[in-house]
Amino acid sequence: MAKDIYHETVKIALEKDGWIITNDPLTLSVGRRDVFVDLAAEKLIVAIRKHKQIAVEVKSFINPSLVKDLENALGQYILYASLMKKQYPQRILYLAIREEIFVDFFTEEIVTTVLEFNPVKIIVFNAEKEEIIKWIE
Amino acid sequence: MAKDIYHETVKIALEKDGWIITNDPLTLSVGRRDVFVDLAAEKLIVAIRKHKQIAVEVKSFINPSLVKDLENALGQYILYASLMKKQYPQRILYLAIREEIFVDFFTEEIVTTVLEFNPVKIIVFNAEKEEIIKWIE
Repeated sequence: MAKDIYHETVKIALEKDGWIITNDPLTLSVGRRDVFVDLAAEKLIVAIRKHKQIAVEVKSFINPSLVKDLENALGQYILYASLMKKQYPQRILYLAIREEIFVDFFTEEIVTTVLEFNPVKIIVFNAEKEEIIKWIE
Repeated sequence: MAKDIYHETVKIALEKDGWIITNDPLTLSVGRRDVFVDLAAEKLIVAIRKHKQIAVEVKSFINPSLVKDLENALGQYILYASLMKKQYPQRILYLAIREEIFVDFFTEEIVTTVLEFNPVKIIVFNAEKEEIIKWIE
């Protein structure tokens, strides 16, 4: 499995944000198939005295066709989220995207329309600063 | 846009089933982006005295990784279905797959799990006979 070019960036950004990386990658096994989500992490959320558990799929959006990248990201997110509902029901899946993609592309109607009908949770990160900018629930 | 290798097969199968092909492809325009669904068709359904309108995305599942093909098919279906809700709310989107893929792969837990949480409408076709075998609503 080829790692996304921003895999390490997101890992560092999550760690800076207080997350402990628990799986790199997280394996989802179903029947005779294994699929791999980029990262899994957890963090003690003091306010609720609970360890919040997440899984993160990193998507670079560096292909010539942003629409093709969007389709690929959606397909992976929908598949992984469905498998996780059975195997890790307490764990929340996020799609990690760069700030530039969030600002320039995720504001376009093609993306806002699809997100209106398909709630995808998103982490926006700044690739240079290696920091998380925004969580979209 | 590269046509799927079974594009003509599905077109013939739909025509044999009494459908009139109205768009090849069907263009969905959103903001400054255009995306293209393989086919659109309509048929007079006598029982309800209405023209039923459909759009069909053909997926061959001929890549080495069936899981990657599944992700791609899901991503396209979710994107197109979302855009159609706004632009063609009366038109129903189907994913067209070969009988072999339906029997050998779509019965696997990885597919049944994702279809349990994401209702995808499916047309199953026989590629040799150029006929539609089954509609899954």
